[in-house]
Amino acid sequence: MADTKIYQASTTAPVNIAVVKYWGKRDPKLNLPTNSSVSVTLSQSDLRTHTTAACSSSFPQSDTLLLNSENQDTSGARTQACFRELRFLRSSIEAADPFLPKLSALPLKIVSENNFPTAAGLASSAAGFAALVRAIANLYELPASPTELSRIARQGSGSACRSLFGGYVAWQMGTKTDGSDSLAVEVAPASHWPTMRALILVVSAEKKGVSSTSGMQITVATSELFQRRAEVVVPKHMAEMEEAIRNKDFEKFGQVTMKESNSFHAVCLDTFPPIFYLNDVSKAAIRVVEDINKKAGKTIAAYTFDAGPNAVIYYEEENIAVVAGVVKGALGHLDGWESRDISAQEAGDLDSRAVSVLKDGVSRVILTQVGEGPVKTEESLIGADGEPIK
Amino acid sequence: MADTKIYQASTTAPVNIAVVKYWGKRDPKLNLPTNSSVSVTLSQSDLRTHTTAACSSSFPQSDTLLLNSENQDTSGARTQACFRELRFLRSSIEAADPFLPKLSALPLKIVSENNFPTAAGLASSAAGFAALVRAIANLYELPASPTELSRIARQGSGSACRSLFGGYVAWQMGTKTDGSDSLAVEVAPASHWPTMRALILVVSAEKKGVSSTSGMQITVATSELFQRRAEVVVPKHMAEMEEAIRNKDFEKFGQVTMKESNSFHAVCLDTFPPIFYLNDVSKAAIRVVEDINKKAGKTIAAYTFDAGPNAVIYYEEENIAVVAGVVKGALGHLDGWESRDISAQEAGDLDSRAVSVLKDGVSRVILTQVGEGPVKTEESLIGADGEPIK
Repeated sequence: MADTKIYQASTTAPVNIAVVKYWGKRDPKLNLPTNSSVSVTLSQSDLRTHTTAACSSSFPQSDTLLLNSENQDTSGARTQACFRELRFLRSSIEAADPFLPKLSALPLKIVSENNFPTAAGLASSAAGFAALVRAIANLYELPASPTELSRIARQGSGSACRSLFGGYVAWQMGTKTDGSDSLAVEVAPASHWPTMRALILVVSAEKKGVSSTSGMQITVATSELFQRRAEVVVPKHMAEMEEAIRNKDFEKFGQVTMKESNSFHAVCLDTFPPIFYLNDVSKAAIRVVEDINKKAGKTIAAYTFDAGPNAVIYYEEENIAVVAGVVKGALGHLDGWESRDISAQEAGDLDSRAVSVLKDGVSRVILTQVGEGPVKTEESLIGADGEPIK
Repeated sequence: MADTKIYQASTTAPVNIAVVKYWGKRDPKLNLPTNSSVSVTLSQSDLRTHTTAACSSSFPQSDTLLLNSENQDTSGARTQACFRELRFLRSSIEAADPFLPKLSALPLKIVSENNFPTAAGLASSAAGFAALVRAIANLYELPASPTELSRIARQGSGSACRSLFGGYVAWQMGTKTDGSDSLAVEVAPASHWPTMRALILVVSAEKKGVSSTSGMQITVATSELFQRRAEVVVPKHMAEMEEAIRNKDFEKFGQVTMKESNSFHAVCLDTFPPIFYLNDVSKAAIRVVEDINKKAGKTIAAYTFDAGPNAVIYYEEENIAVVAGVVKGALGHLDGWESRDISAQEAGDLDSRAVSVLKDGVSRVILTQVGEGPVKTEESLIGADGEPIK
């Protein structure tokens, strides 16, 4: 009798926000970057992808992926690369142990959900591919370490490789042409520096900008400053950032974070035609962080921006009142503050014009903090009947 | 009997808008730049400073400068350097010819007026110092060439050295520590390529940004990409630009102009703290130029931005309808169009959101073109009584 059992495993995976930015591929097919990068993994209580991977001979023959109840195309080279690599690892252990079920030969059904609004414009592909790879690895009971899986997740979405770890994570660019040494490693666990907080200002963008996938390759091809960034600036920032994290030196962490964000957006602007992710609302957020640091007399808050106008502001728990509290004093009317107990502070030291621009342009805030890597869960998104649970 | 005669001479001088940008001083006292630059001199019919320089023993003993009816401080190092250098040249010819009146020993009275609103945020210091130096050189009857005078005007305001010539002008950075070889030279006269036009979109800035004088030195001190720009990118752009001008190759001229502007603003963004001169209105102007070029299938319009949000759009006379005419189709309600006979064109190929941002953010347009260098004039701003003419 044919085995029609439904095998399944579930995981959650986090979002990460880079403090040394990934921008540029030396090999677009393998997602091999032109420079190393570092990120902070954010708490899954606030931002996470939940994914169930299942396989069964009773499933339709083609692999399927349902994200937030919408069918996704799985025929793309990136998703296919992940499926292929994971099946290869499974088939290797199946070959060594004939008693194992031949899961590598079965069609996959993946169901995935984000706990944050996709409209928020938060890079969800990192959490998405990390969860997909981690869930299938769990399903296949692969003995692979997070670093080994990072090689696979990287092929789905570059920055996804960093979401396989919690805490502070480096993606080492590697040198090999096959990408086997382009891997994520832990710089420090969340417990090493657990007081790191993040305040995200979600900016209502009227229009989607250039996608990061195409944008970064136009930068590589046209920016006359890009090579300098990749070869000289980022290696310096990598060393400084890893040292700052080891020493829990927020001033250094914050300064490198801000300079890195600026350097990344500078090469975007130096791209031809130029790529703009920062808008006037983003600039107002930068001004507010500058005002907070000026008032403190040192760097206690640090902005960073990915391929969009949203501001992520890092700070430490001890400064919650003078960073998040002061921003709440200016933007207390927005959704998102209710998730933490923060009392609004007098915001009179902030530039009034910047506050006015933020009031008009920020749609909600997200309060979060450094968090753990993917977590296995028994909560499944696929029922015993093999159908997605609504 | 003491000579109480009022000696005087008048000139007008043009504004210039750089297409290879000056940003960064290797010697802030002498205004010696970190890189060479190229500009287009704009027509004095539209934008000019008119200056009368006078000297007399009947004047109060200290040198005075009246700009647009307001007294200016003349004690600053830059103005003093110009006065000192010009007096030195005058005293040399006085020493050689005892019959010459000893003008170098007399107090100077300078009266200056711009024919454009200072509120427009157009860099007027270039025209201002060029006119001041040219007017005093005329007063002193110095045999100095424009290039010789450029060494002096440079010390007043770096980019002023380029306003001593018409047409297409290079400021060669030089290598000497005394600045004696940091001079402006003509790349080509206006007559070589007389069809060059400029459309200036004057953007209502809510707030003055960082001054270029302080901003460029913060860039030199903090930008990690700046050195690459000064040492590699600008020399490449200089060679390309001079060749484009020699060949009247607008496509090349336009592309280098846009890349240069982007590169300059990229190193501003890479400054710490970052300097932003481009705002969302500037970005909308970039988008409109991109749309115009896309429609044409080639580069027929080129944007450039100085240390502020105003867009200067260069184009050739033959494309007046599809560049200026199309912008007029979108922004025909603004002041400034009346100076030229341009018929508004259908603007339907322009991004509608960009047009909407421009409608809200552009306060007026200025239509102008490549023009001549300083012109001697008999029209004086100082009366026979030695007082400014109101």
